[in-house]
Amino acid sequence: MYFASDNSGPVHPEVLTALSDANEGYAMAYGADALMDEVREKIRHIFEAPEAAVYLVATGTAANSLALATLCQPFQTVFCSPVAHIHEDECNAPEFYTSGAKLTLVPGEDKMTADALHATIAAEQTRGVHGPQRGPVAITQVTERGSVYSLAELEELCAVAKSFDLPVHLDGARFANALVALNCSAADMTWKAGVDAVSFGGTKNGLLGVEAVVFFDPDKAWEFELRRKRGAHLFSKHRYLSAQMAAYLREDLWLKSARMANDNAARLAEGLRAKGAEFLHQPQANMIFAAFPRAKHQDLFEKGAMYHLWGGSMDGDPDEMLACRLVCDWSIGHDQIDAFLSLV
Amino acid sequence: MYFASDNSGPVHPEVLTALSDANEGYAMAYGADALMDEVREKIRHIFEAPEAAVYLVATGTAANSLALATLCQPFQTVFCSPVAHIHEDECNAPEFYTSGAKLTLVPGEDKMTADALHATIAAEQTRGVHGPQRGPVAITQVTERGSVYSLAELEELCAVAKSFDLPVHLDGARFANALVALNCSAADMTWKAGVDAVSFGGTKNGLLGVEAVVFFDPDKAWEFELRRKRGAHLFSKHRYLSAQMAAYLREDLWLKSARMANDNAARLAEGLRAKGAEFLHQPQANMIFAAFPRAKHQDLFEKGAMYHLWGGSMDGDPDEMLACRLVCDWSIGHDQIDAFLSLV
Amino acid sequence: MYFASDNSGPVHPEVLTALSDANEGYAMAYGADALMDEVREKIRHIFEAPEAAVYLVATGTAANSLALATLCQPFQTVFCSPVAHIHEDECNAPEFYTSGAKLTLVPGEDKMTADALHATIAAEQTRGVHGPQRGPVAITQVTERGSVYSLAELEELCAVAKSFDLPVHLDGARFANALVALNCSAADMTWKAGVDAVSFGGTKNGLLGVEAVVFFDPDKAWEFELRRKRGAHLFSKHRYLSAQMAAYLREDLWLKSARMANDNAARLAEGLRAKGAEFLHQPQANMIFAAFPRAKHQDLFEKGAMYHLWGGSMDGDPDEMLACRLVCDWSIGHDQIDAFLSLV
Amino acid sequence: MYFASDNSGPVHPEVLTALSDANEGYAMAYGADALMDEVREKIRHIFEAPEAAVYLVATGTAANSLALATLCQPFQTVFCSPVAHIHEDECNAPEFYTSGAKLTLVPGEDKMTADALHATIAAEQTRGVHGPQRGPVAITQVTERGSVYSLAELEELCAVAKSFDLPVHLDGARFANALVALNCSAADMTWKAGVDAVSFGGTKNGLLGVEAVVFFDPDKAWEFELRRKRGAHLFSKHRYLSAQMAAYLREDLWLKSARMANDNAARLAEGLRAKGAEFLHQPQANMIFAAFPRAKHQDLFEKGAMYHLWGGSMDGDPDEMLACRLVCDWSIGHDQIDAFLSLV
Repeated sequence: MYFASDNSGPVHPEVLTALSDANEGYAMAYGADALMDEVREKIRHIFEAPEAAVYLVATGTAANSLALATLCQPFQTVFCSPVAHIHEDECNAPEFYTSGAKLTLVPGEDKMTADALHATIAAEQTRGVHGPQRGPVAITQVTERGSVYSLAELEELCAVAKSFDLPVHLDGARFANALVALNCSAADMTWKAGVDAVSFGGTKNGLLGVEAVVFFDPDKAWEFELRRKRGAHLFSKHRYLSAQMAAYLREDLWLKSARMANDNAARLAEGLRAKGAEFLHQPQANMIFAAFPRAKHQDLFEKGAMYHLWGGSMDGDPDEMLACRLVCDWSIGHDQIDAFLSLV
Repeated sequence: MYFASDNSGPVHPEVLTALSDANEGYAMAYGADALMDEVREKIRHIFEAPEAAVYLVATGTAANSLALATLCQPFQTVFCSPVAHIHEDECNAPEFYTSGAKLTLVPGEDKMTADALHATIAAEQTRGVHGPQRGPVAITQVTERGSVYSLAELEELCAVAKSFDLPVHLDGARFANALVALNCSAADMTWKAGVDAVSFGGTKNGLLGVEAVVFFDPDKAWEFELRRKRGAHLFSKHRYLSAQMAAYLREDLWLKSARMANDNAARLAEGLRAKGAEFLHQPQANMIFAAFPRAKHQDLFEKGAMYHLWGGSMDGDPDEMLACRLVCDWSIGHDQIDAFLSLV
Repeated sequence: MYFASDNSGPVHPEVLTALSDANEGYAMAYGADALMDEVREKIRHIFEAPEAAVYLVATGTAANSLALATLCQPFQTVFCSPVAHIHEDECNAPEFYTSGAKLTLVPGEDKMTADALHATIAAEQTRGVHGPQRGPVAITQVTERGSVYSLAELEELCAVAKSFDLPVHLDGARFANALVALNCSAADMTWKAGVDAVSFGGTKNGLLGVEAVVFFDPDKAWEFELRRKRGAHLFSKHRYLSAQMAAYLREDLWLKSARMANDNAARLAEGLRAKGAEFLHQPQANMIFAAFPRAKHQDLFEKGAMYHLWGGSMDGDPDEMLACRLVCDWSIGHDQIDAFLSLV
Repeated sequence: MYFASDNSGPVHPEVLTALSDANEGYAMAYGADALMDEVREKIRHIFEAPEAAVYLVATGTAANSLALATLCQPFQTVFCSPVAHIHEDECNAPEFYTSGAKLTLVPGEDKMTADALHATIAAEQTRGVHGPQRGPVAITQVTERGSVYSLAELEELCAVAKSFDLPVHLDGARFANALVALNCSAADMTWKAGVDAVSFGGTKNGLLGVEAVVFFDPDKAWEFELRRKRGAHLFSKHRYLSAQMAAYLREDLWLKSARMANDNAARLAEGLRAKGAEFLHQPQANMIFAAFPRAKHQDLFEKGAMYHLWGGSMDGDPDEMLACRLVCDWSIGHDQIDAFLSLV
């Protein structure tokens, strides 16, 4: 009954097999391996972007920070949600990689609205040289609250960005989960909507630790390569990153795993709803923010369930509703979900 | 006949097995996994340093840059060899991570001498607030030219650093190769000689991509953790780093592999010497810088040998001596070495 | 009728005389001039802080950024008001000088309340290594809206900071105006209340361009000196900074000028109140945020009055109330104020 | 007998007068003052560059660091002399402003030769993404050893830079002294030779503290403005910078002062030569590096002469030759020089 995070589950067995398969003989270092050629072509194909620049790094924070640093000058500001990973969970990595750019928070609880984004951008850079200059818009899809922007919402946000001539970055740590939820193409969810660069996550969906960064404008490629190296994120034995991503993309493993994760979450949400749980956000992908009585949490923890409370503690009235975050990855079985539900 | 680099060979099979073994169920993320406890204790034991702070990162550049950033203020300068990896091969990563510290080069071709180090440090910071301030001394062991500092040499360098009250960092990307060459203990080669922090390499010696950073002063621990996270080098699925390093340390795999690599290089060097090759540096670990006629290189490349020329090109007189770098890892077989030698 | 800013008026004649007086013969460079000794002693005396470290820089942004950089690690965040100068008007200088620290905004329109500050700090750094760490609290006195924190308010804010073991910086670009408004001592308004470092402004109060930075903990001195030099803010011909500040402090010129500025603003506010103007903030020092009908603005601008509208434009209904910012320095004469009032 | 530095002498009286003249009424802040318009036009005229971007800052380090930051990416390296001010005397300011670029030293004792520059650039960036990338060439004119590059030498250096497609920055802290020595035009010594950006010094030649930064490519203008503000080097009461520079440029005060300084140095050098002093570098502008017996130094210091020894100390054999640096500004009188010479 492990719902703490989708970064705590096992790696998909096919990925481990791919590592073994890649372990034959000698391979060019630093991304010049043949598997990377396969990965690059596959990602370009998936995104319908034959010119896209494609790179691998090992952490989501690296993907986001390096992508933003390539899009943002140090005297600019990045527009993002107050609950964005880049703001709350990266210990100033974006500020570090951009050499001191600012993050400007678009008011809201979860998803940015086009109106709020427009108002925030419009209010910034009204002081000439004195204030920070407008920089990239950063969107998280799936959001940190488990929500999924519709294609129309993405298009609206990107249109706002473009109206100010600003680039758009998409933090897709859970890209596959969003894609499955929207049932659209990777191109639809990115460049066709107006996205310029994507962090295409793999770690939370069955890899050991690999994220792709995709720039639809290939002119960004060389600067990104230099920033990746300078950030110490260029792997010498790169083939072991390539192998993971290659396995991920072969035979749609990435989509299958995401579909399993989302389905698991849907089963869990349905069960919770039937039990009378309240939802802080409507579950759309593989994360659930739900509240049920503290006594239930007590019982679950005692029975070995693993997950995080959300904004509360175990001290207090047993009947009081207390929120938690429940995350499903591809590996959690129906038996675990059902066992959990039976305890709620 | 692959002698291009020790970062191009395969991973040791036991390491892959360890990854599979680690792939059971759920594990705490971000370094709180049980395997990391094992790694920490093992490294403290190996270094005879029960209080040492021990962390894992995935690249050598990350290990070096983060360690230096923890030891160096932005208005200081790092003292190192002109051929140090941190100076020549990290695309300004140390400057980036230290927020703009300088690297001051100690004159010399390869190993730093205590006299040259002393003179260089003494000449720096003679301008009060105007010049960079003295910062850490960075030593590479094995050096980038395949040389190994003796314990006496290390002690002398560290004594110079201490006489100026400066900390010492050891870039041990090939730590095990040096240890095997010196036949001493890890403690002897580090804190007993006066080293404060170590990049303890694994990637060049059979891992997919893991280096440990060890601080003998545990007061550096928390700052390092924050810098690692801010640098985007904290892995969520950390168990797969831990598993690699745990396998590396179990049953002395790290020493066995290094010994195989050094022995391979010794066999190769002996053969080259017998063939009349000239050595730019006396081979002491697993790297050889040798020169033989251009025609021989021509022949070798045609036969499929892989290695880098060193400071020359294939255009020119066939009889002219032309240098190359030959690196052996643990995996290269005697047959490959002998085949290579038979062609020289 | 010039009310645009207190950085647009002339320099006090005594300051120019002091420059001439300082222009005799040769003087030690870089702050070793005899006038700086006078300044240091005078400021220590004024602040009743015989050990304080005292430095001069030429801009308020430099004073703030360098002071914060000395108090803040790059993985931390500074707590400040959403309308703080360091957030809105310094083009990411604090982020630059701190090597990428964040600014966390304490909700509010102008002055920070102790409750809001406490809640904001408490909510930060609840994610271990993942989020930014708590850093300094930055208070602006006089605020950017012309408000003055009472001593009790300052003490409360500092007590909150201290309860989290955080240092406090006071941006005193209008320090003298606040002191005159509160009629207290410089010590009362700073270290006795819990402030650790002060930007002690001179530029807005009659100097050409000099601000002092004062650290009550002299252990910060050397690091600040290095950061000042590295930031290119150490003047070679430092005596001309010293001379300005020395003249400013002699015979209480700083207090006299601030009193004139505040009195000018009070006269202006009183007149506006009599004319039915509405105040966005109660004027307490030398800045007034007032609203009166657009037609009046039209008339004033046509008659040559100089000041900034505040959040509105000249397009619209002539009878609509429209806000503006009016700033008085020491030099504006009663005749100018009365002429202005007669037009409102 | 003050020969310690050209930053220790008085300001030219006409500059002080200009400050007084500028002190009338109200002026637009932040560089929008009318005097800045005059300065901009005058500098464009002097440089025969009607499109040039022209800005003022208060220190030479700011001018150099901001100019280089505008020309250099953080993953690049600046090529300069080992005795360049940016390397030895700015406490890592260039590294700070460029967000961590490196400085690569072109071997030599003083002036860079085209051959050495070419060899150094060619040797850099031979490692693809791994090493620092080639960045700007930085030339100091007058050098830190008092030498002046001829126009032919400048052209050769710039041609080398251009052959690698690199921009050129000229640190002209003593620009006027060089121009007078070469008896050429400002255009000849800069863009006609291939220079892209200039630090045009005023502080060492009679101002309180003002340097102009000139970009011949106006496309750099806005980025420079943002970097200047972010570096806290934008003055609110900018008119007092403008006034200094305007006075400097009016009626060729800058050239007259430089000519006086150079003539003073020539008189001093001639006298020293007659006395048998040895010169470390042939004096060409206003700095002299000469050696004479220690006993003479002893005598001079006792009689009140002020200057710096160069690479030696007062302890030792009285007859031994001991070097010193002697700098003349415009203000030192012939009587002082002759008094000094009579003591040698």
